[in-house]
Amino acid sequence: MKTPRPRFTGIIPPVCTPLTPELGVDVASLRRLVEHLVGAGVDGLFVLGSTSEVAFLTAEQRAQVAETVVESVSGRVPVLAGVIDMTTPRVIEHAETAAKIGVDAMVATAPFYTRTHPAEIARHFRLLHDAVDLPIFAYDLPVSVHSKLDGAMLLDLAADGVLCGVKDSSGDDAGLRNLLVQRADRGADVAGFSVLTGSETTVDAALAMGVDGAVPGLANVDPEGYVQLLRTCRDGDWVTARTQQERLLRLMRLVDAAPSTRMGRGSSALGAFKAALKLRGVIACAATAPPQIPLDDAEIAFVRAHLIEAGLL
Amino acid sequence: MKTPRPRFTGIIPPVCTPLTPELGVDVASLRRLVEHLVGAGVDGLFVLGSTSEVAFLTAEQRAQVAETVVESVSGRVPVLAGVIDMTTPRVIEHAETAAKIGVDAMVATAPFYTRTHPAEIARHFRLLHDAVDLPIFAYDLPVSVHSKLDGAMLLDLAADGVLCGVKDSSGDDAGLRNLLVQRADRGADVAGFSVLTGSETTVDAALAMGVDGAVPGLANVDPEGYVQLLRTCRDGDWVTARTQQERLLRLMRLVDAAPSTRMGRGSSALGAFKAALKLRGVIACAATAPPQIPLDDAEIAFVRAHLIEAGLL
Amino acid sequence: MKTPRPRFTGIIPPVCTPLTPELGVDVASLRRLVEHLVGAGVDGLFVLGSTSEVAFLTAEQRAQVAETVVESVSGRVPVLAGVIDMTTPRVIEHAETAAKIGVDAMVATAPFYTRTHPAEIARHFRLLHDAVDLPIFAYDLPVSVHSKLDGAMLLDLAADGVLCGVKDSSGDDAGLRNLLVQRADRGADVAGFSVLTGSETTVDAALAMGVDGAVPGLANVDPEGYVQLLRTCRDGDWVTARTQQERLLRLMRLVDAAPSTRMGRGSSALGAFKAALKLRGVIACAATAPPQIPLDDAEIAFVRAHLIEAGLL
Amino acid sequence: MKTPRPRFTGIIPPVCTPLTPELGVDVASLRRLVEHLVGAGVDGLFVLGSTSEVAFLTAEQRAQVAETVVESVSGRVPVLAGVIDMTTPRVIEHAETAAKIGVDAMVATAPFYTRTHPAEIARHFRLLHDAVDLPIFAYDLPVSVHSKLDGAMLLDLAADGVLCGVKDSSGDDAGLRNLLVQRADRGADVAGFSVLTGSETTVDAALAMGVDGAVPGLANVDPEGYVQLLRTCRDGDWVTARTQQERLLRLMRLVDAAPSTRMGRGSSALGAFKAALKLRGVIACAATAPPQIPLDDAEIAFVRAHLIEAGLL
Repeated sequence: MKTPRPRFTGIIPPVCTPLTPELGVDVASLRRLVEHLVGAGVDGLFVLGSTSEVAFLTAEQRAQVAETVVESVSGRVPVLAGVIDMTTPRVIEHAETAAKIGVDAMVATAPFYTRTHPAEIARHFRLLHDAVDLPIFAYDLPVSVHSKLDGAMLLDLAADGVLCGVKDSSGDDAGLRNLLVQRADRGADVAGFSVLTGSETTVDAALAMGVDGAVPGLANVDPEGYVQLLRTCRDGDWVTARTQQERLLRLMRLVDAAPSTRMGRGSSALGAFKAALKLRGVIACAATAPPQIPLDDAEIAFVRAHLIEAGLL
Repeated sequence: MKTPRPRFTGIIPPVCTPLTPELGVDVASLRRLVEHLVGAGVDGLFVLGSTSEVAFLTAEQRAQVAETVVESVSGRVPVLAGVIDMTTPRVIEHAETAAKIGVDAMVATAPFYTRTHPAEIARHFRLLHDAVDLPIFAYDLPVSVHSKLDGAMLLDLAADGVLCGVKDSSGDDAGLRNLLVQRADRGADVAGFSVLTGSETTVDAALAMGVDGAVPGLANVDPEGYVQLLRTCRDGDWVTARTQQERLLRLMRLVDAAPSTRMGRGSSALGAFKAALKLRGVIACAATAPPQIPLDDAEIAFVRAHLIEAGLL
Repeated sequence: MKTPRPRFTGIIPPVCTPLTPELGVDVASLRRLVEHLVGAGVDGLFVLGSTSEVAFLTAEQRAQVAETVVESVSGRVPVLAGVIDMTTPRVIEHAETAAKIGVDAMVATAPFYTRTHPAEIARHFRLLHDAVDLPIFAYDLPVSVHSKLDGAMLLDLAADGVLCGVKDSSGDDAGLRNLLVQRADRGADVAGFSVLTGSETTVDAALAMGVDGAVPGLANVDPEGYVQLLRTCRDGDWVTARTQQERLLRLMRLVDAAPSTRMGRGSSALGAFKAALKLRGVIACAATAPPQIPLDDAEIAFVRAHLIEAGLL
Repeated sequence: MKTPRPRFTGIIPPVCTPLTPELGVDVASLRRLVEHLVGAGVDGLFVLGSTSEVAFLTAEQRAQVAETVVESVSGRVPVLAGVIDMTTPRVIEHAETAAKIGVDAMVATAPFYTRTHPAEIARHFRLLHDAVDLPIFAYDLPVSVHSKLDGAMLLDLAADGVLCGVKDSSGDDAGLRNLLVQRADRGADVAGFSVLTGSETTVDAALAMGVDGAVPGLANVDPEGYVQLLRTCRDGDWVTARTQQERLLRLMRLVDAAPSTRMGRGSSALGAFKAALKLRGVIACAATAPPQIPLDDAEIAFVRAHLIEAGLL
């Protein structure tokens, strides 16, 4: 019997959700964004994650986004869908919708808003697995969820067939590496468990450590850049990879478009990604969902300057 | 012209949501709980708050709870309803439902999961006010929301007619007092702004400082205790009030039924409130929503012992 | 045999440390400050606490401060001295100096900088007690120490004769009350354990709950105000006490002299206390220790306005 | 004119401080430890850091440690010394001692215990630079200091000649890389600024990103392992480097010798390092400073097993 291998690998951008000026989902723009990404050679798409403003979308809008992307992609690459909500019963509702729409996997955080014990986090994933027949990625995002997923727990759940992978957006690279070595040490039971980094700026380092792929928000803006970086890393050309990654790091500075005295860091970053997509002609409108404050003209000029410097305009 | 006075005052328990063994809303038990509370002389009911396990209820269950309580109460006391969700568009959906059902006010937190700037928090409440015609309470709950509402901002929003009050569950009594003195100093513009404490164990102190009422989870278990405490405080008999409050503090220890090595503090507290309601014959089943771990027999016995000590069994 | 009673009670200001323009201890000003406080009728003095800028004073300066105050006070009221440092061996050194100088009690935090387990915090206090023959107050200051002292642990240490009291600057009034009721419930063993609040703005509430005294930094500026407040509370006149406390709360707003964009909250508060003491003619120079940024003229005018409003200038 | 290059590079272990059973500095063991490290080919030594239990050492013990190591090393490699204390005046005292003893550079954190503004952190380093003539490393250790040093601020201070480098123990590899790319982008002004990682388990990744060296606590236990890892990385053999780093990661698990229910994570890690040094015959006694709880026999056996697995026993 062969050792299983992770099924979800490579560059899997978390897809921005274009909005109309009236703040509805802009389906036409979303379809163009899908082509922009798939056409660049990405290996999968992750809809309804934090970069997708999932926290701001109603249930109906979430379904509309997932349907649009599944239909547009039409099987060319796998589609992962976030099922982000406070607790198990609410997450299960999103999961049922996602399964009906036909995504390939779902991505769930630990419970939030409530104060949850590690045993209850594990129970959460087990109940979700029992309720809905879709592969589950755990989404490790302490900045939003205010708890860190324990590596040993993730692998226990993987060994029991509950989890198919983790998207690690914790920024804790020592923890990430510890997880990777634990995965290697535990053998065939967990060998199919996919480890993806949510980082934009340490993708080469994460791939060198053994992650299976990356879910960088910045790949909305420069998908070719990340596809090339992945290829270079897989070729073992770490010197070139470093140069490519550093170029992307300099591009990533566009997320600081707005000062932290004027809006939240998330609003600045999402506003900048969308402004860049509009400037690049991919989406029609750069609006972000309320209550996020929109970028002003100077801030959009800041984004434009970074695109020019990166050779994207 | 008369100075306006806060409309929502007194003891306003956050109503537990009884569940059936199959984890649906137990409507019959919920009706009995309403009678238990209204019959004890409380001044209002707050449904769909944290104590109501709102984070665990689906949209449909939330509507069912609000409908049941509004119908059961039938105008005897005002009903406040939580509209708890991550961001403005999702909160507005809950608010529209609440308005349709006919509650008297809604209770909204700052955005959570996202990292939100104070200016975006203010914008959130303003957009909610623009969208739905219901009085709004701000819900200050840093332990869940991970941001603290600024007192001056609350009063600015009150002066603009956006907020009708705050439920302060921050545990920051210095901040609470500062807010109360600011309210007094700003005069008629904000004089109708209602300040309620979410505390169980410093209600006498908060009333002495000038809050308009309290929203204590423990009032599910002993509503008469809190109604008496309020009356004693209003009579200015602070010595008796202290004795009554200390009795309730000792009863409150039932929330430590389960050790923190076994489950989250929320699960222990909500499990204990529901176990107490079942032991007192008010609700039929003490189940809490998943993924919360249920109390075991020894833990329920711990709850029983506290009820006996408090003269409630 | 009589039940013991707490030995340290009443208003015990944490004494500011006046500095010369060259940033040495200004002994003459410190003596005047002692007379300002003792003359106002305070019940004790707490030197070398956070308000005293203990974190900024060298070992030699700390000794100079304690010697000056012990000598100036000359037994009129008890003198408590902070022995603030990172861990047990370093705290013991300060404690030996304090004992030699002849203070009446020492005040020690849990270890900080290191990440310490509750069992190690208890061990810390026990080792300090074994090493130096002086009554020990535990200093609960999570904002600086980043851990909260557990009430049951404090009372266990009290029952074993290790601690004589706690200075609670945690701002957690629910926790404070829980501690007070636990102390009452545990009887004679811990009845001599002194509970002091570090609050400036909820002193009436804390006294109503049963604390033995208060250690308000603002009492440097208006010691008579706090002495009167204590007397009013002991007389059970809570209505007058509230008015007095609210006046002090309004005065306390002077700590917001400088915007948080320009300096830390501690620098603004300590700078404001010292500016007020200079404006009131008690100390010669308002300098704070480096790297704290000094108040500018507009900020000092803000302090002056608050003194005038409070009738202190 | 040539672009300056960082002066302090390579493997610079933070040296454990061996204690006698009576808890004094064990000078003979410290000398053996120095030989153990220098003999293995390390590029420098860092005394009086967190791994050295600096938080637990009195001023006298700190001087004794620095003197012993400077004398033992006798110029073979540079010696960096921590000057860890709460604020500027206290840090300056340690710095003066370190300069007198003749260390090659000092390592200072931001102020802690106090709540300090970024402008005050910068002022802290500038005042230290003005006061004592020794190169300064900034020590970025949020887990102890509770603030994160801003990369742009570090480089501004470097450009002004205030800082010679940073020891980054923040675990924030995205921030680390951002700093490295900023350093490259700002040119000759900051090209001599040394960036060292405090990580044990991502040293290969950090070197691939461009750091100048590493300060791994685990290098006390296996200095040869880290010296080889550095050499392999400098040769650009990243595949072998990964294998070497993963071996060290597995060895690093010895820090989990004691359960977190029994003692703090620091006590477990420092106890394990010292137990390993004793088992390897380098130091005479594995005692850690109070109030840290010592490892028990089973926990020491856990350490031994890891040494055997790593081929070190």
